[in-house]
Amino acid sequence: MTPARGPLRPLYAQASGSPIRAMLALAGREGMVSLAGGHPDPALLPAEWLRESLLEVAGQLQGRSLQYGATEGLPALREASAALLHQRGLAAQAEDVLITTGSQQAIDLLARVLVEPGEGVAVESFNYPAALQAFRFAGARLVEVPTEAQGMDVEKLEPILQAEGPRVLYVVPNFANPTGAVMPLARRLRLLELAAHYGVTLIEDDPYGELWFGEAPPPPLAQLNQQAGSPAQVAYMISYSKVVAPALRLGVLLAPAGIARGVVLAKQAADVHSGSLEQLTLAAMLTSGRLHSHLDSLRPAYAAKGAVLAEALRMHCGDLLEFDEPLGGMFIWAKLSNALPLLPTQAWVDFGLEHQVLVVPGAAFSISGAAQPWLRLSFANPAAEALRQGAERLGRGLRKLATTA
Amino acid sequence: MTPARGPLRPLYAQASGSPIRAMLALAGREGMVSLAGGHPDPALLPAEWLRESLLEVAGQLQGRSLQYGATEGLPALREASAALLHQRGLAAQAEDVLITTGSQQAIDLLARVLVEPGEGVAVESFNYPAALQAFRFAGARLVEVPTEAQGMDVEKLEPILQAEGPRVLYVVPNFANPTGAVMPLARRLRLLELAAHYGVTLIEDDPYGELWFGEAPPPPLAQLNQQAGSPAQVAYMISYSKVVAPALRLGVLLAPAGIARGVVLAKQAADVHSGSLEQLTLAAMLTSGRLHSHLDSLRPAYAAKGAVLAEALRMHCGDLLEFDEPLGGMFIWAKLSNALPLLPTQAWVDFGLEHQVLVVPGAAFSISGAAQPWLRLSFANPAAEALRQGAERLGRGLRKLATTA
Repeated sequence: MTPARGPLRPLYAQASGSPIRAMLALAGREGMVSLAGGHPDPALLPAEWLRESLLEVAGQLQGRSLQYGATEGLPALREASAALLHQRGLAAQAEDVLITTGSQQAIDLLARVLVEPGEGVAVESFNYPAALQAFRFAGARLVEVPTEAQGMDVEKLEPILQAEGPRVLYVVPNFANPTGAVMPLARRLRLLELAAHYGVTLIEDDPYGELWFGEAPPPPLAQLNQQAGSPAQVAYMISYSKVVAPALRLGVLLAPAGIARGVVLAKQAADVHSGSLEQLTLAAMLTSGRLHSHLDSLRPAYAAKGAVLAEALRMHCGDLLEFDEPLGGMFIWAKLSNALPLLPTQAWVDFGLEHQVLVVPGAAFSISGAAQPWLRLSFANPAAEALRQGAERLGRGLRKLATTA
Repeated sequence: MTPARGPLRPLYAQASGSPIRAMLALAGREGMVSLAGGHPDPALLPAEWLRESLLEVAGQLQGRSLQYGATEGLPALREASAALLHQRGLAAQAEDVLITTGSQQAIDLLARVLVEPGEGVAVESFNYPAALQAFRFAGARLVEVPTEAQGMDVEKLEPILQAEGPRVLYVVPNFANPTGAVMPLARRLRLLELAAHYGVTLIEDDPYGELWFGEAPPPPLAQLNQQAGSPAQVAYMISYSKVVAPALRLGVLLAPAGIARGVVLAKQAADVHSGSLEQLTLAAMLTSGRLHSHLDSLRPAYAAKGAVLAEALRMHCGDLLEFDEPLGGMFIWAKLSNALPLLPTQAWVDFGLEHQVLVVPGAAFSISGAAQPWLRLSFANPAAEALRQGAERLGRGLRKLATTA
């Protein structure tokens, strides 16, 4: 009758929290340089712009604004978000977009409405851990697609689709976390072909697409799909976390009508609607027209930080680390030399404490959690001097590791 | 390999949205009186208090406030919420409470971490529909416990626990939606006894507990459990929606450590954390110390509206409706006379359009969705004159129904 277990389902009783969070708990230590967090430099957060919009919202606040809102989102924010997507080249009206409590919620709701427990979800070799967690909690079987310098190796995908039959594929084509890779146009078109042919729903997560340094990335899969007459099912999401502020838990989902309907039903039961004050504030920010100038200042700022870290790594880590120059986003994905031992995640926490520089090991992003010869180095948060210091400490620590190996 | 179905899981493809939402879409029509919505009178929403707190937050805003926050919630809001629970008689420190994106999220997360698909969840005969939906989406088998004027009939519970073996029981002991019932102290103690004996986790949802008219309800199950040395597992939640504002999607969950750990893991993957601007604003509101005077003014305001509707119903609906005087909350739960036909939900929508008064039929709150001889009449939103007019139109409509029967 009542099985002998504690209150929690085994899925949750046995789950572990994000290893990155454990590391980030150390980031505030005196003298620590953290290259571990994927969060922006506070100096780059638009406090002034947000404050002005907050004041505007405060001035217009009435009883009506404080009622329950629509699950799909505040109309003004749906309008502004659709306009933003339209500027990116997507066909989108306000009624096509859903406002979610961050992109995390979009991933989570899509996992819940698309994935029957036990069904496969195809993912890249390395992923944002909380995305994998959302799929796991939906009971998904994670299916790895080989991934390299240009992201998911779509040429290797077809036999995997045939053998494993995933119904869903999750991909981050622009400056992915952690690899920083950009999927080239040809691969995007091929991926759409395969998705359409095999009936695989694509979840395209695009939080970093605006943070390009040299040139804008190729068009989103969702746009290419639209242009081809929508042969595939593509659910496309953007986030305001990286381009406005993480504290505003707000993202936008553009999905085919049938999928959107399922997501709305799921969201009704998940949180009814995303916070209204934040939606009002963000809507005011977007209608101020200042987003573009904000992005125009963000890109070179991140590009400069990326360049500082890259140069410092070359100087201090020499041939112990191999990496591509960052083209956008927040991360350098660095391959560790064969001369270095493969360490488990905990050992990298110890490394961080010993050398006063936190880095996230590739294991944290892998499906299996097994040790990997990779490090994710975030240049988004620390100031330039801290980036240089971090690279120097990393170099020193790696050289010590190499001698002990 | 790939089963022949659309992208959505059958669970979502076949789900229907809330019937109340469909009805509420009609509430704004010219001349319509809606007794259908469980949302407050905009005149009772603390726009001024919220505005002042918003301005305070705007003044203190810095880059740091805009970063990712903790999944468990903003420390200042956890503190203030723990203090509130403490005032209600519960032992609670800041580290014991979790901030959720409304109580809806607390219900949803608890469903996901506690209920294995197919497992039973015991519920009252009539429930807030989105709670049932959250349990359904978690794959729960809903087990009905007979319910009457004083809520769940706990004397009938034991054989059900023995026969059906639910691991979880969801209950709203104070001014439940839709019944308005208050569970007496003796039943609360008996429920705890049974929960402890049979290893059933109690989910105690208390959004209306502060909205009492004559006297405060008995202590929460969570408090009684603590006082008894915590023999049972009780997850207790309150909401700021009904006592501050629905637009602030914020609720508080107080759960045993093991359950809380599971909920935090689930929330990390669900939305990372609840909106920071709203948490900052609510924390400022609560630390202003004005909540108590706000509640002191809310209670008589709702009590007066309840009395107006009750009196108008007695005057205009006579013996076609039978109901208890509301003791708190937002609803009158009225039994329809046997002289009236049992109508399906759609017929009540038509009734609303014909007679210009919207009411929610009991079917919308039942597990099966079958027609019920009950109506939920909300007095929270309309002004006194509209309440009287609504009762008059309802009476006219019911008498017409009685003659056609």
